[in-house]
Amino acid sequence: MDQIRVHSPATVSNVVCGFDCLGFALSEPYDDITLRLIDEPIIKIRHNDSYGLPTDPDKNVAGVTLRAMLDAVDEPFGFDVEITKGIKPGSGIGSSAASACSAVVAANELLERRFSKLELIEFAMAGEMLASGSRHADNLAPCIYGGFVLVRSSQPLDVIELDHPPLFATVLHPQIEIKTSEARAILPREVPLAAAVRNWSNLGAFVAALSKGDTELMSRAMRDEIVEPARSSLIPGFDDVVQAGLGAGAVGGGISGSGPSMFMISASREAADGVAAAMSEVYSRTGIEFNTYVSAIDPDGVRVV
Amino acid sequence: MDQIRVHSPATVSNVVCGFDCLGFALSEPYDDITLRLIDEPIIKIRHNDSYGLPTDPDKNVAGVTLRAMLDAVDEPFGFDVEITKGIKPGSGIGSSAASACSAVVAANELLERRFSKLELIEFAMAGEMLASGSRHADNLAPCIYGGFVLVRSSQPLDVIELDHPPLFATVLHPQIEIKTSEARAILPREVPLAAAVRNWSNLGAFVAALSKGDTELMSRAMRDEIVEPARSSLIPGFDDVVQAGLGAGAVGGGISGSGPSMFMISASREAADGVAAAMSEVYSRTGIEFNTYVSAIDPDGVRVV
Repeated sequence: MDQIRVHSPATVSNVVCGFDCLGFALSEPYDDITLRLIDEPIIKIRHNDSYGLPTDPDKNVAGVTLRAMLDAVDEPFGFDVEITKGIKPGSGIGSSAASACSAVVAANELLERRFSKLELIEFAMAGEMLASGSRHADNLAPCIYGGFVLVRSSQPLDVIELDHPPLFATVLHPQIEIKTSEARAILPREVPLAAAVRNWSNLGAFVAALSKGDTELMSRAMRDEIVEPARSSLIPGFDDVVQAGLGAGAVGGGISGSGPSMFMISASREAADGVAAAMSEVYSRTGIEFNTYVSAIDPDGVRVV
Repeated sequence: MDQIRVHSPATVSNVVCGFDCLGFALSEPYDDITLRLIDEPIIKIRHNDSYGLPTDPDKNVAGVTLRAMLDAVDEPFGFDVEITKGIKPGSGIGSSAASACSAVVAANELLERRFSKLELIEFAMAGEMLASGSRHADNLAPCIYGGFVLVRSSQPLDVIELDHPPLFATVLHPQIEIKTSEARAILPREVPLAAAVRNWSNLGAFVAALSKGDTELMSRAMRDEIVEPARSSLIPGFDDVVQAGLGAGAVGGGISGSGPSMFMISASREAADGVAAAMSEVYSRTGIEFNTYVSAIDPDGVRVV
């Protein structure tokens, strides 16, 4: 096999009380990538989309990720890469993670699966470093594994696949830009111990609720008084959208990644569709353009087409 | 039925990364209490032990707990209470919680179970208030429910029974006193966000590990860089004891409650016995008297004898 095509899903990280550790994969939207093994030790990149991402492999997320992998392989071949991004860059639903993960999963198939999923995430962190300036795995891990994934530790990397019931997500992506540097700078450096305790109590309860399939407990546990109050100020209409989603029957939700996208989780596709309608109605009043996505929680992660 | 006898187990709270929310019940040691319904609206207390606890019902943990319950019942009867404490007061393994829980569970049986477990915990919090100055449920909840229990919130009370594999605990109780006020004052009021994130990542992983029965993950997740560094300074020999326990094959462990007891969790009774031997050998060098207990994690909580 010297050519392969994969789909790489969008992901939601920073799941409310799971800031910096908890994420999940969406069935849609996704990126589409085709990789060909070539006989030269170079990486060629083409984009079949209109996002204007760099095609210089040293400045492209898939490129630097593949470079990290080739450095580990140390054999005289390279890759020809054709990318059709379905996930808009800067949306807060793991666009750069999808680029990085699609590249490493596809390349690993061409290399007869010589690397483990954890090793693939390590390579892909080079891509996240390029995109956001930090080696974080909280979008990469759900993108590779699918489902709900907890990153217990980034160094050493420790990734836990969580049991969960069938769930559906609604994402509303306002067409505004939030700079990663700004979303980071706005976070408190220190938090009151009492607030931290409430947060970890909620996260522990949320993980238990996932494994029990208890959506009422999930709902009670989806609270964040540490990150959300700070970052939601960067997203016009945040409170109204969340209230509309909850009012329409969502289990819970919040900021996706560092925004600007917002997500809600629902127990059925019908509920998630109703939540999308309610969120859209509220958001159309802001005058800001937006997209919505309704999707199952994707159980598989990056998959070969 | 106008008389009943119950056993009320010791409990470990503040389970490493689960500070202020996670606890579990021990099969031993336990308190033994006998309650008789009497026709006068008073509470009489006798102690069949040598701990010198007050028998004035307004100054006794079981007494104030029963008073809280009688106030809610508002009927003209009372209780005659005979207590044989097996759990030494001030040991850090839920002695006051056992007193309060035994009283409410026994009384509720005599009242034909008119109260739910959550209501019993609400009454018992009056006892914890007397004993420690705060209405906390993190020993009460595992004492009532048994097993591993997460208190997501104290107000409103939200208690989650966690799935877990069979586990065993070793407790070493040094015969020193740590004042609750001192153990509280030594805690940081604020913590770095990055440390808080590591803690909730670990707690999320620990809850997942319990439900999966994955003792290796439990072991990796049993870390506490927030409370333990502060409070362990109050317990002579802490680091050496924990290292000895881990070296003897324990899954993990730390401070029980606010100390001075230390606990280790093991995957089998044989392992827990070996851990007890290793911890004892190390602790005997301190010259401080101590007791050790080896026990299964108790699945039932307070039980009628």
